[in-house]
Amino acid sequence: MVDGNTLLYATVGDPVAQIRAPQVMGAVFEKLAVNGVWVPMHVDQAGLLAVLQGLRTVRNFRAITVTIPHKQTVVAMLDRLSVAAQASGGVNMVRLDNDGKLFGDMVDGSGFVRGLELHGHHVQGAAVWLIGLGGGGSAIAAALAEARVARLYLTEMNRERATAVFERLGHYYPKVPIEIVNQPVGRVDFAINATPSGLKPGDPLPFDPAILSRETVICDIIMKPKETALIRAAESRGMRVHHGHHMLDSQIPMYLRFVNIPFSSDESILEIARQA
Amino acid sequence: MVDGNTLLYATVGDPVAQIRAPQVMGAVFEKLAVNGVWVPMHVDQAGLLAVLQGLRTVRNFRAITVTIPHKQTVVAMLDRLSVAAQASGGVNMVRLDNDGKLFGDMVDGSGFVRGLELHGHHVQGAAVWLIGLGGGGSAIAAALAEARVARLYLTEMNRERATAVFERLGHYYPKVPIEIVNQPVGRVDFAINATPSGLKPGDPLPFDPAILSRETVICDIIMKPKETALIRAAESRGMRVHHGHHMLDSQIPMYLRFVNIPFSSDESILEIARQA
Repeated sequence: MVDGNTLLYATVGDPVAQIRAPQVMGAVFEKLAVNGVWVPMHVDQAGLLAVLQGLRTVRNFRAITVTIPHKQTVVAMLDRLSVAAQASGGVNMVRLDNDGKLFGDMVDGSGFVRGLELHGHHVQGAAVWLIGLGGGGSAIAAALAEARVARLYLTEMNRERATAVFERLGHYYPKVPIEIVNQPVGRVDFAINATPSGLKPGDPLPFDPAILSRETVICDIIMKPKETALIRAAESRGMRVHHGHHMLDSQIPMYLRFVNIPFSSDESILEIARQA
Repeated sequence: MVDGNTLLYATVGDPVAQIRAPQVMGAVFEKLAVNGVWVPMHVDQAGLLAVLQGLRTVRNFRAITVTIPHKQTVVAMLDRLSVAAQASGGVNMVRLDNDGKLFGDMVDGSGFVRGLELHGHHVQGAAVWLIGLGGGGSAIAAALAEARVARLYLTEMNRERATAVFERLGHYYPKVPIEIVNQPVGRVDFAINATPSGLKPGDPLPFDPAILSRETVICDIIMKPKETALIRAAESRGMRVHHGHHMLDSQIPMYLRFVNIPFSSDESILEIARQA
């Protein structure tokens, strides 16, 4: 029940009808007895700065998550950025700090890595092939480098985008071996689709899992449909798969940590989210 | 339950801890099956303009109510004003219209008049004495003139404020006889306290009901305490009284009308609000 003491959280995007944060975080807040409400804010590119400047002045406002198409644009509007945000060139969480400064972080990538961990897959020391370097892919690339993969193969059709990511990662993670490739030259432990290919029925496979060892874990970041053609092709070859929804699910405890709301364990939060 | 399609409403003020709109409107929305949430926004004078400019760009934002200390300041920040807002010099509701313009209205006064009506008291053709011309008093003065009282006696210690209200009312309601007085010279049907005197224990009476006919209805706009010293003095003389909370209660159906949310009757809405 919202009252005069309720703290405000929001997801800012265009569109917002599809977002699940209000329901999920509403359930989490209720369970944790946090007097907070998570609302959708439907804002287009032209309005984004005005909304941030407005929220700065609302004393009971705490934080927003930022979704499509604002994750890159919002970067220039903030006062401080995490290393993950700088390394990935995007932001998906913004917090109003006590000194009135807006702090941006990016947890799409660390959410993806955390999702793997929660399912027993560890990327540290692994060889990873990542296909697609849009917003999600860039964030995942930075998080994989941060998690100290042994080798990172990147595939991206847009040369300019590939070069930008390659240079940014080289700057922040100079010790991680990174190659831009059409397909990996060696064995990989993980292959990750971060392209939109698979969203629509009839989309071509982003890559053919048959070119990889059967030991490779095949990951997709597409959430809808849950069972993409890539996931089905991998499963029919008897390969292990990792579904798209884990990336977002695993971020829920990160949102709470970001705004200093205490909780007992990631698993307890994920359980609340699953039931919401 | 808030979701990605929820419409946003807020009360903007400083402080906001005491406001009841989130609970009351939450209950009303639930009963009317409106997918909306009413949140508090704690905003000081310096932040007010930025918040309004931000809300302008939020497509699922619909309206705010404005409370202390912003009811006068906000006037200059809007695109359009109702006659009630212009005549009272204040605004307590702001709506974002389809053309992106902010429209301000003031229903403190009409809420007060409506509250009287709902209790069988009609001010049209009556002689009314109003004491106190701050934000609430100015709005009530304009609403009484709009409701075509036969005679309006105004009492206000601050001469400048009294003159400003007198001139504004003369401009918008030239046919209503208005006098600035220390106390009314003739019989009055209603005497209304719109001063803060009575908020604190030991406050002097804003006026002595004993100087008035026993037929006069004694009204207070103070909500807390409900039974002010004035109300008690009037009751002990056997006079009819009208409590402060009716002014705000009666505005709830007005908020709904303001944002085009249909409902069956004012009474049905007030009943939901009473139970919230």
